[in-house]
Amino acid sequence: MKFYDLKPGMNPRRVRIFMAEKGILDTVERVEVDMFKGENQKPEYLAINSLGTMPALELDDGTVICESVAICRYLEETNPEPPLFGRNAVERAQVEMWNRRMEFEIMGPGVQHFRHTADMWKGRIPQSAEYGQICKDQALKRYAWLNERLDGREFIATGDYTVADITAQCGLLMAVNTGIPLPDDVPHLQAWWERVSARPTARA
Amino acid sequence: MKFYDLKPGMNPRRVRIFMAEKGILDTVERVEVDMFKGENQKPEYLAINSLGTMPALELDDGTVICESVAICRYLEETNPEPPLFGRNAVERAQVEMWNRRMEFEIMGPGVQHFRHTADMWKGRIPQSAEYGQICKDQALKRYAWLNERLDGREFIATGDYTVADITAQCGLLMAVNTGIPLPDDVPHLQAWWERVSARPTARA
Repeated sequence: MKFYDLKPGMNPRRVRIFMAEKGILDTVERVEVDMFKGENQKPEYLAINSLGTMPALELDDGTVICESVAICRYLEETNPEPPLFGRNAVERAQVEMWNRRMEFEIMGPGVQHFRHTADMWKGRIPQSAEYGQICKDQALKRYAWLNERLDGREFIATGDYTVADITAQCGLLMAVNTGIPLPDDVPHLQAWWERVSARPTARA
Repeated sequence: MKFYDLKPGMNPRRVRIFMAEKGILDTVERVEVDMFKGENQKPEYLAINSLGTMPALELDDGTVICESVAICRYLEETNPEPPLFGRNAVERAQVEMWNRRMEFEIMGPGVQHFRHTADMWKGRIPQSAEYGQICKDQALKRYAWLNERLDGREFIATGDYTVADITAQCGLLMAVNTGIPLPDDVPHLQAWWERVSARPTARA
């Protein structure tokens, strides 16, 4: 399998951590696609992913799977242990629910703040600094909300480390590095953050 | 099971269509939560869904599942026929991929355009008309992209009608009703739109 990667990218990191947790990171051929040189907008890559985003997974028969969570779900089916999407129907629903909340409530505002305010996106996408500020305010509200969820809990969705934790930790890493640090009054979120960041897979 | 519903809402509609396609819509007790009267922000409902959004599914043992796709995935596991998330690991990955693309590329810009420009959201959420316009431009680009995907295809993800079609049709319904109609130059998207809108479940 070929994994179309972007080393500093938040979404490719989600899948690399997922693969590392499954112990299969070394079984894929990693192909770096340099967005900064525009390689992702060249016809060769657009034939693989018409949206020009990374990551993408190409199976040995040429089938391409795009979208981080779609790739992770495929790898969960083909490499079930350890389960990172839950252990039964109710747990799988809870993991899906929390994974989506982490995407829309934590990762989303962080990404949009970055894209709408950072110099590196100027000229690449239409920016609105006004919307960037709205997203920053929203992210801080959601930090407080997630802090409450983590009161008395080791992980976000179930008793296990799951894909919801991976999404949140990659989203937070991006957000804290681009202007939305964790405030002082979220001790449960801070403790969780230190816990997941200390996992051997965190820098995959 | 109790289904916390909002009749005009885009996300509750996704799940109602999904349940109708499975033939189980009449097996759930539907509880309308009136957002316009603020019922979703009352402590009773926030105890069910801390984000105050609809829909939510409450199982008979009191377990609550929020997030439309998490609810759909639970219902897929407990009511496998007809499969709406794909028939095997590769198909399931393709459906997940296209469902997410429909959420982020079609539904997302439409929702954000609506939320940032419509009078009904004034005072309820912070708005940026500038960002609303960016989203409208983006939605029109993605209509053209989806039109290409549908050239020669009956449905979006696989040969079957799947959750990806449901997401796209609910997203489009909202977008065309709130200021981003389909332009004249997307014949494949238009044909698909007429096809899915003609299904008996489309007005569930």
